[in-house]
Amino acid sequence: MNNFTFYSPTEFVFGKDTELRTGKLCKEHGATKVMIVYGGGSVVKSGLLDRVMKSLESENISFITFGGIQPNPVDTNVYEGITLAKNENVDFLLSVGGGSVIDTVKAIAAGVPYDGDFWDFFALKSIPQKALKSGVVLTIAAAGSEGSGNSVITKVDGALKLSIRTDKLLRPVFAVMNPELTYTLPPFQTACGITDMIAHILERYFSNTVGVEISDRLAEGTLMAIIEEAPKVFKNPKDYDARANIMWSGMIAHNGTCGVGRAEDWASHFMEHEISAVYDVAHGAGLAVVFPAWLTWMADHHPFKVAQFAKRVWSVECKGDDKQIALEGIKCFKEFLASIGMPLNFTELGIPNPDIDLLVKKLHTNKGLTVGAYYSLSEKDTREIFETMK
Amino acid sequence: MNNFTFYSPTEFVFGKDTELRTGKLCKEHGATKVMIVYGGGSVVKSGLLDRVMKSLESENISFITFGGIQPNPVDTNVYEGITLAKNENVDFLLSVGGGSVIDTVKAIAAGVPYDGDFWDFFALKSIPQKALKSGVVLTIAAAGSEGSGNSVITKVDGALKLSIRTDKLLRPVFAVMNPELTYTLPPFQTACGITDMIAHILERYFSNTVGVEISDRLAEGTLMAIIEEAPKVFKNPKDYDARANIMWSGMIAHNGTCGVGRAEDWASHFMEHEISAVYDVAHGAGLAVVFPAWLTWMADHHPFKVAQFAKRVWSVECKGDDKQIALEGIKCFKEFLASIGMPLNFTELGIPNPDIDLLVKKLHTNKGLTVGAYYSLSEKDTREIFETMK
Repeated sequence: MNNFTFYSPTEFVFGKDTELRTGKLCKEHGATKVMIVYGGGSVVKSGLLDRVMKSLESENISFITFGGIQPNPVDTNVYEGITLAKNENVDFLLSVGGGSVIDTVKAIAAGVPYDGDFWDFFALKSIPQKALKSGVVLTIAAAGSEGSGNSVITKVDGALKLSIRTDKLLRPVFAVMNPELTYTLPPFQTACGITDMIAHILERYFSNTVGVEISDRLAEGTLMAIIEEAPKVFKNPKDYDARANIMWSGMIAHNGTCGVGRAEDWASHFMEHEISAVYDVAHGAGLAVVFPAWLTWMADHHPFKVAQFAKRVWSVECKGDDKQIALEGIKCFKEFLASIGMPLNFTELGIPNPDIDLLVKKLHTNKGLTVGAYYSLSEKDTREIFETMK
Repeated sequence: MNNFTFYSPTEFVFGKDTELRTGKLCKEHGATKVMIVYGGGSVVKSGLLDRVMKSLESENISFITFGGIQPNPVDTNVYEGITLAKNENVDFLLSVGGGSVIDTVKAIAAGVPYDGDFWDFFALKSIPQKALKSGVVLTIAAAGSEGSGNSVITKVDGALKLSIRTDKLLRPVFAVMNPELTYTLPPFQTACGITDMIAHILERYFSNTVGVEISDRLAEGTLMAIIEEAPKVFKNPKDYDARANIMWSGMIAHNGTCGVGRAEDWASHFMEHEISAVYDVAHGAGLAVVFPAWLTWMADHHPFKVAQFAKRVWSVECKGDDKQIALEGIKCFKEFLASIGMPLNFTELGIPNPDIDLLVKKLHTNKGLTVGAYYSLSEKDTREIFETMK
């Protein structure tokens, strides 16, 4: 097991009607002037934004709103937000939405007290030292951004999708999580979210670090819970307990619980980031195409952990060698993804003619000669994997 | 799933040589005058106390020391500590030790800014509103107190062993966890710690709240990791990875991860508290006697979750009814406890003639007419369970 720091100081307030406590939570965390950030109009139509604003009003906290944040969040929204927050002397940011809104807010939070261009942080030219505090009212169980210190932003000019990762600075101070708010999500979005959280666990699970039984077991347990609960959500979108299990699993998948003490991989995420940066597909749908392809390639080249995944998570009986066991597990995983309506290749993803040269070139320009830690992938390797997604 | 708040803001710094960062962590968390609290002389002899003091000195943080904290921590140590901390204008408490030291420190932390008697908090006459900050350098993987807001203290006069539970206030702000510091623990103490962490998970796991698959899976995964790693520790006390897995599991077992969204039980802990309050046995050893007895009684009266425990954690094949499956799982659990040297009845615990009348009377005087939430136990029930421990 490697040395590590685990620090997840977010106050998670989970359950029915918890959005009514938003104002109180903002106050407890020292907010005096809040910028509420949200995406499309769904939080307006559903009345959620109203309930949140009333909750702030009842605590006499002044606020402004900033809507229209795009999915696959973009730098232009961040610049706008930074300017607005500065002009209005905002001291607290409140995300009302999912991962895209939260990631945008984190970038704004780091950008406000910074004299330079916030993109410096994503281009690794600078490390954020200060940030505004932020809180979350979560509406989508997916990205786990409510419990992480990470943010992913796309620079529109150049379709550069890059991420930053902070241990402490950008973690939301609170996250309100009411599973009922996810009842009305379209099934496709629910499925994308489920795929994203599974991928967050797998990126940590696929590691060569040995002696991490506790991290493995927590990862496998969370995967099994997601796989068990997901079908219930599609059968009955208002199944509270199933929605609640999925929502909490999404947080556990990404706050670090499943990654302690080991090198993490993240090659699949980086490959997907190029796909969604170029083709603007939903991140979760992209991952549904990338991850099985990556796993299948690994079954050929470095199967040991894929076999463990097959045995412990998919209950594959131990016949044959690691490769055969691994392939059996991947089959189960693909069947699961198909059953929740996810695409499994470029065509199903809506990209009949992917420009694989471009994807490979961008990937290695952004991420270096090799990507991944479980098995270090060269340009030749990632090209092979992209090819199998056709 | 029930509504819940999950808030585990402790900064866990885990791995080799991490105790050398103690001074830096104290500084980051605002300490200017520290009281270092420890138990017997083992941290002196091992040189750990020296290393910690040097680490504080190198950050120019002044400190005093307060040693001699008893196992099964007592109110008299707390009073002494409060007086000392007040007289010396201490603003930060540092535990160097295991659960007994940490629990004592939490009680001191709550007691210092309180005008009345700190015991008011344990007697439920008052709720702590303020507390000194505290940090931990952990030397025993057991109680999980490094990541919890709880404390258990025995009032010497009357042998009253009572606990308090706070969501936020008493959680340590940091915990330094170096598995190497546990290499020299006597095997009996290691085994008591392992039993205690298993019990912390089971108290949360045994719940009637339905729709908590994620909590169940996290609990089962942690239990499986402990069961897998424990034998390695006894085979080779310097097996770093095994010690590391056990140490982290002890934290996960008690910081709330395994309990979210459900009613918890805690009857077995309350029963054990009476045993160790009256007979001063090691808490973990007491739990090794109580928990199998409690489970066996439950196999008769309310077996459903015991059967799930048997199937998922002990891989009991699904033959027979819930009761039979449950009993098979309990057999595995007892074999495991015996294999690590734990007692399984009062005699093995060193109490050949337990005063069961007294235990039952104290239990229900302290905890009310019934105890436990998985199955509410009357005096008649707890007497039956105590009797089977003979």
